[in-house]
Amino acid sequence: MEDLVTRLLDGNLNAVPRILTLLEKGDPQADDIMQRIAANTTGAHRIGITGPPGAGKSTLVEAMTAELRKQDLTVGVLVVDPSSPFTGGAILGDRVRMRDHFLDPGVFIRSMATRGASGGLSAIAPSAMRVLDAAGVDVIIVETAGVGQTELDIMHTVDSVVVVVVPEAGDAIQTMKAGLLEIADVFVVNKADRPGAKRMANDLETTVHLGSRDMDWWTIPVLQTEGIRNKGVTELVEAVGRHHETLRDAGRLEARRAEQRRSEFHAALRERLLDRLTRAEHSDALAEILHQVETGQLPPITAATHVLQNPNLLK
Amino acid sequence: MEDLVTRLLDGNLNAVPRILTLLEKGDPQADDIMQRIAANTTGAHRIGITGPPGAGKSTLVEAMTAELRKQDLTVGVLVVDPSSPFTGGAILGDRVRMRDHFLDPGVFIRSMATRGASGGLSAIAPSAMRVLDAAGVDVIIVETAGVGQTELDIMHTVDSVVVVVVPEAGDAIQTMKAGLLEIADVFVVNKADRPGAKRMANDLETTVHLGSRDMDWWTIPVLQTEGIRNKGVTELVEAVGRHHETLRDAGRLEARRAEQRRSEFHAALRERLLDRLTRAEHSDALAEILHQVETGQLPPITAATHVLQNPNLLK
Repeated sequence: MEDLVTRLLDGNLNAVPRILTLLEKGDPQADDIMQRIAANTTGAHRIGITGPPGAGKSTLVEAMTAELRKQDLTVGVLVVDPSSPFTGGAILGDRVRMRDHFLDPGVFIRSMATRGASGGLSAIAPSAMRVLDAAGVDVIIVETAGVGQTELDIMHTVDSVVVVVVPEAGDAIQTMKAGLLEIADVFVVNKADRPGAKRMANDLETTVHLGSRDMDWWTIPVLQTEGIRNKGVTELVEAVGRHHETLRDAGRLEARRAEQRRSEFHAALRERLLDRLTRAEHSDALAEILHQVETGQLPPITAATHVLQNPNLLK
Repeated sequence: MEDLVTRLLDGNLNAVPRILTLLEKGDPQADDIMQRIAANTTGAHRIGITGPPGAGKSTLVEAMTAELRKQDLTVGVLVVDPSSPFTGGAILGDRVRMRDHFLDPGVFIRSMATRGASGGLSAIAPSAMRVLDAAGVDVIIVETAGVGQTELDIMHTVDSVVVVVVPEAGDAIQTMKAGLLEIADVFVVNKADRPGAKRMANDLETTVHLGSRDMDWWTIPVLQTEGIRNKGVTELVEAVGRHHETLRDAGRLEARRAEQRRSEFHAALRERLLDRLTRAEHSDALAEILHQVETGQLPPITAATHVLQNPNLLK
């Protein structure tokens, strides 16, 4: 483990996968590693990309990665898809364009997924960002595939949030309902060759400004892109970079980092509580109570109150 | 409260809204009420309707309600939308056809939503079903608006799960990724006038049978409907009714009810743990730890471990 940390802090990306696997397994060694690298995890620019399914996020991330590489920046990409049964490298097989980067030592790609788990990723993904940061990666892009709580949690741990939508009826409304309007630093209308793109961009701009989400130090831009044709990608990378600089110049990066750490702590605590609960369910301690619940002698909600009043049942 | 329970058990639906409000508020009286009515909460047929956004679930539920009323059955409808900012009656204003039922004393409609909450509804919705059941409602339809964990949890507490999709690229894949294939008792391809509907129905049938989800006592039907034109709705109501009868005849209803109660208990326990965590965050006990986390002195994940080892911090 000592060796693993040394290699990581030396900038050896080969050390990353094993550490991420320890994190994903919930191995106690991962805690130690996180503590050892704590002082070295604030250098990278963390970008989050989110939006409804089908918005073309993957293609955009791939195009952004290529653009950042042109600027000689190293890039870490985490693809977080809580609903996918695939983890590790599997899902990336679908990402044809990303294959261009597979042999590039300046790009690290990892897919993180847990089928049916109740959001363990909202604690693991931020730690994974710290690991990449400690390895000296310049830019970390976290792409989340959905619009659930896990994805929102993760977006609270990045510096710049890019929300991607497509010009389709319902997409904007779904985005707002999912609470994405409140967290976007940059809006992207992707697949901008489709009818209604300009209109949607205008509507979004009006909504953002009406909602007074603009701050005195940052005006949320609404960009139009065609990820698949590489159109507007340079502008997107530039806008996100400008957001990061502005955060720093306005003296707000430290405040945002403090918020990030708080979000990360909350997510980790919540997930470990749930983990403890899951383990307790497999123990004998709850058996009698569960039996009474299943046979209808004890209302489920009353049983829950009882267990909380006797926390030893959860040990 | 005594009076409220008496009225409820007398079949007075007017008692329902106040009890649901107590439940939503997490009022301890709600626990008492649930315990008082526990013996009277197994009569109704509980139907769950789920599927991706835009599948036309609301329209189908409205058409099913009308069909069930024709058969002189009383109907309770719970619309669960965790991402919606609206609760109570508000959202129902959008549901034009549902207005027909507003003055019908044989129909009870309630919209349940919590903006940004981490799923409190997976414990409340099943309790709400029990309340409607205790009032003597014949059929309870729970419509969930999304495909997240909360919605899956709720589907584990109904007798018959209807999964609605539309013939659109990606819809079926999204459905499978969300784990809906595993829980459907009846599949519906809605908006069946659209191109590709028949093909999608065939594909779904193949997938369901290939995945050997068919049981020896039930073959999962794949129906085609046009909710908006009322086409196929009679067949849908018939199929769901047949599922319920088959469950009962096969002696499987009791087993399913036991599973439901177990799911309900797990959801309630999980949510109360999270609730306790949220309250602790607002207390002074965690202040010093949070400060260390925010300033980067303590890695968030390490802080979480520390708190779990000292559960008094959560009191």
